[in-house]
Amino acid sequence: MSSSGLLEDLVEALRCLPGVGPKSAQRMALHLLQRDRDAARRLGSTLVDAMDRVHHCEQCRIFTENTLCRWCSDPARVSSQLCIVESPADVLAIDRATDFRGKFFLLLGHLSPLDGIGPKDLGLDLLESRLETGGVDEITLATNPTVEGQATARYIGDIAARHGVTVMQIARGVPVGSELEFADGGTLAVAFSHRTRLS
Amino acid sequence: MSSSGLLEDLVEALRCLPGVGPKSAQRMALHLLQRDRDAARRLGSTLVDAMDRVHHCEQCRIFTENTLCRWCSDPARVSSQLCIVESPADVLAIDRATDFRGKFFLLLGHLSPLDGIGPKDLGLDLLESRLETGGVDEITLATNPTVEGQATARYIGDIAARHGVTVMQIARGVPVGSELEFADGGTLAVAFSHRTRLS
Repeated sequence: MSSSGLLEDLVEALRCLPGVGPKSAQRMALHLLQRDRDAARRLGSTLVDAMDRVHHCEQCRIFTENTLCRWCSDPARVSSQLCIVESPADVLAIDRATDFRGKFFLLLGHLSPLDGIGPKDLGLDLLESRLETGGVDEITLATNPTVEGQATARYIGDIAARHGVTVMQIARGVPVGSELEFADGGTLAVAFSHRTRLS
Repeated sequence: MSSSGLLEDLVEALRCLPGVGPKSAQRMALHLLQRDRDAARRLGSTLVDAMDRVHHCEQCRIFTENTLCRWCSDPARVSSQLCIVESPADVLAIDRATDFRGKFFLLLGHLSPLDGIGPKDLGLDLLESRLETGGVDEITLATNPTVEGQATARYIGDIAARHGVTVMQIARGVPVGSELEFADGGTLAVAFSHRTRLS
């Protein structure tokens, strides 16, 4: 190792962050060394701590350092309603933006037979045993409005229907605040065919 | 702390990185937890290690974990030539792009009386005592071609001249590979007045 090895190690290590190339890694390393050593130390120990202690919630697969995540362990949330999402970021986004007060179930991906991602990899056995136990009346599918997300939603919808659970899906249509001129044809077609009566 | 506190702590801690806002911090945290825990642990321990052990080279103020940086301790580099730069990134850039084989001196900023940054804050006392000791024949000023960088260069040039050291400055002009149409007036003026004979 050269005599400035540790700085180079740090630049290299920073590149594990998504979207960080050699130039930004270097900028980050120098910034931390020059201006913010305490914050960098805190980040370092939090990283190690989080990687060792954060795992999936036993019930819904959301990241938590406890047995149950804060949504599953929150007595104020209704257990009979379940919202199915692909990624942890979706949980946070839905929690922030909507008034949904049920529980979540996290797929951590979508069905993709070509990549070898089947129902088990998405925890659908866990979901099915939860529906079997009873207590869930309604699930809302909030997978991504992509071909894969839609296929995954359909697959889960079939499971839920077999257990007599009401299956809902979040609405697809033109995004609020957007201009129709820039909407793609698929979105416009869905928005038009799913039009609702103006009350 | 809520039951998903550690993930939130990690997102918050990641925001100490320059250019990382709440959304990218969240994306980074989830990416590391889902895909790259080992790299994240390595980044964590490297961060703590680097913040504790990396300091300034005693001779030139470049970051190193040793007493002297790898440039100052390299016997193959000429001690009689000194290149003065503002930031550590400049050292790396010049080392990569040029055939300069002398030593460096790092200012870590530029003179800025309004911000209370004087000659001492740039280590100019260290530089002057080095020029006094002798052994340096030529310095090359590679401060930024800004008003502040230029003022700093002039100040250092005066010091060096007092010690009978040859003072050079890297050329200013139109960037290689650029189009004149997009060059600013100041650059064009400098490029024109510093024109050289085509050999």
